[in-house]
Amino acid sequence: LNIGAAARAMANFGFSDLFVVKPYAPVWRETVSAVGAEKLVLEAKAVPSLEDAVRDCHLVLGTTTTRRRRLEKPVIRLPELFSSLRKRLKEKGKVALLFGPEKTGLSNRYLDRCHAFLTVPTDDACPSMNLSHAVAVCCYELSRQKRFGPKVPALEIPLARAGEVEQLTRHALEVFKAASYLDFLPEAERRRKIRRTFLHWRLRRRDLALLHGVFRYILRRLENET
Amino acid sequence: LNIGAAARAMANFGFSDLFVVKPYAPVWRETVSAVGAEKLVLEAKAVPSLEDAVRDCHLVLGTTTTRRRRLEKPVIRLPELFSSLRKRLKEKGKVALLFGPEKTGLSNRYLDRCHAFLTVPTDDACPSMNLSHAVAVCCYELSRQKRFGPKVPALEIPLARAGEVEQLTRHALEVFKAASYLDFLPEAERRRKIRRTFLHWRLRRRDLALLHGVFRYILRRLENET
Repeated sequence: LNIGAAARAMANFGFSDLFVVKPYAPVWRETVSAVGAEKLVLEAKAVPSLEDAVRDCHLVLGTTTTRRRRLEKPVIRLPELFSSLRKRLKEKGKVALLFGPEKTGLSNRYLDRCHAFLTVPTDDACPSMNLSHAVAVCCYELSRQKRFGPKVPALEIPLARAGEVEQLTRHALEVFKAASYLDFLPEAERRRKIRRTFLHWRLRRRDLALLHGVFRYILRRLENET
Repeated sequence: LNIGAAARAMANFGFSDLFVVKPYAPVWRETVSAVGAEKLVLEAKAVPSLEDAVRDCHLVLGTTTTRRRRLEKPVIRLPELFSSLRKRLKEKGKVALLFGPEKTGLSNRYLDRCHAFLTVPTDDACPSMNLSHAVAVCCYELSRQKRFGPKVPALEIPLARAGEVEQLTRHALEVFKAASYLDFLPEAERRRKIRRTFLHWRLRRRDLALLHGVFRYILRRLENET
């Protein structure tokens, strides 16, 4: 029900790329086969992991409440989303907005993959929004600005996409392993540290080639040493 | 379901005055007694007519699509709602937003009672919004401006409220009847004409006393003639 309602809200404001990460299979089948299902639901992609969904995005924003957790990344308030995108992207780019289950929100596993967080300012007496409403106001805000806001200045430096950042993270982790660096930390924790740093850097595409080159060089050196 | 969802969206953005006009009794009982019903639903007022709902409002805006009908009143686009309110109210005042059933929208009977129309700009390929989503984006837009927008300049001239305009309409209709003016029109049509004019005038409170005085005077003269 919620996915269908969210899809309709997206369509209302002219958005079309809907990914659903690891949907519960029976519910998903029902949603897609529902009579009168939105075109957008029929075209939605069900993917096994978030990585598959955001691979070619330049900026990944996770929606979250500012109340529950200690936030270790920048938080954008929805009314400032558009001006914030202008600052962060500086060019045309693909932006992913992530929404979590209504009851629990996005888990840390997903928030880890975000460049920044997005929050809808709500009333203290009733802060928790219906999922499809959150999708509706976010899409409305973006379409509002698209139609009424200032034009986004065009491209200068191409940014790295989420999938490329993830590749770089894996490469760096190899280097860490080969060098036994931070060995005392669990692998997942090391990966998080690396990813967080790369996401924070707002890597450009040209940085990717450079860093991959550096990592390859270090790996070769380390191999020769042993 | 829709009323509960709409109420929650209102509460999310700090709004609290919910009126439900002529709800279907069994559904309404169910809504109000639902487990986990929003506080706002419990406090909502079910009223027998629109007039009861908007009596003390200075400005009544009916949400509508700009596609279906010939619109004979000003149409405000949602992103311009706040600046439009500033222009129209010029003081603190109560504004009512009217939402109709999802399938049919507001009927003409209700649109007749509005000073102006409000429309949410949606995509041509999927223009029709879920009712509670429409409520959500309208409340979001207002709260967005409340928190982020310019301050509303304070009061100058008190405007008439919807209930007062309706009284004046009734009084004028009496005059029309006594003078056999526009007798060839059905009464409902005459009432619509008068109301539309008064709503268009954006009457101030001081105009009310003046016009009631004029109407009383004419009625007395007409009585003396017969």
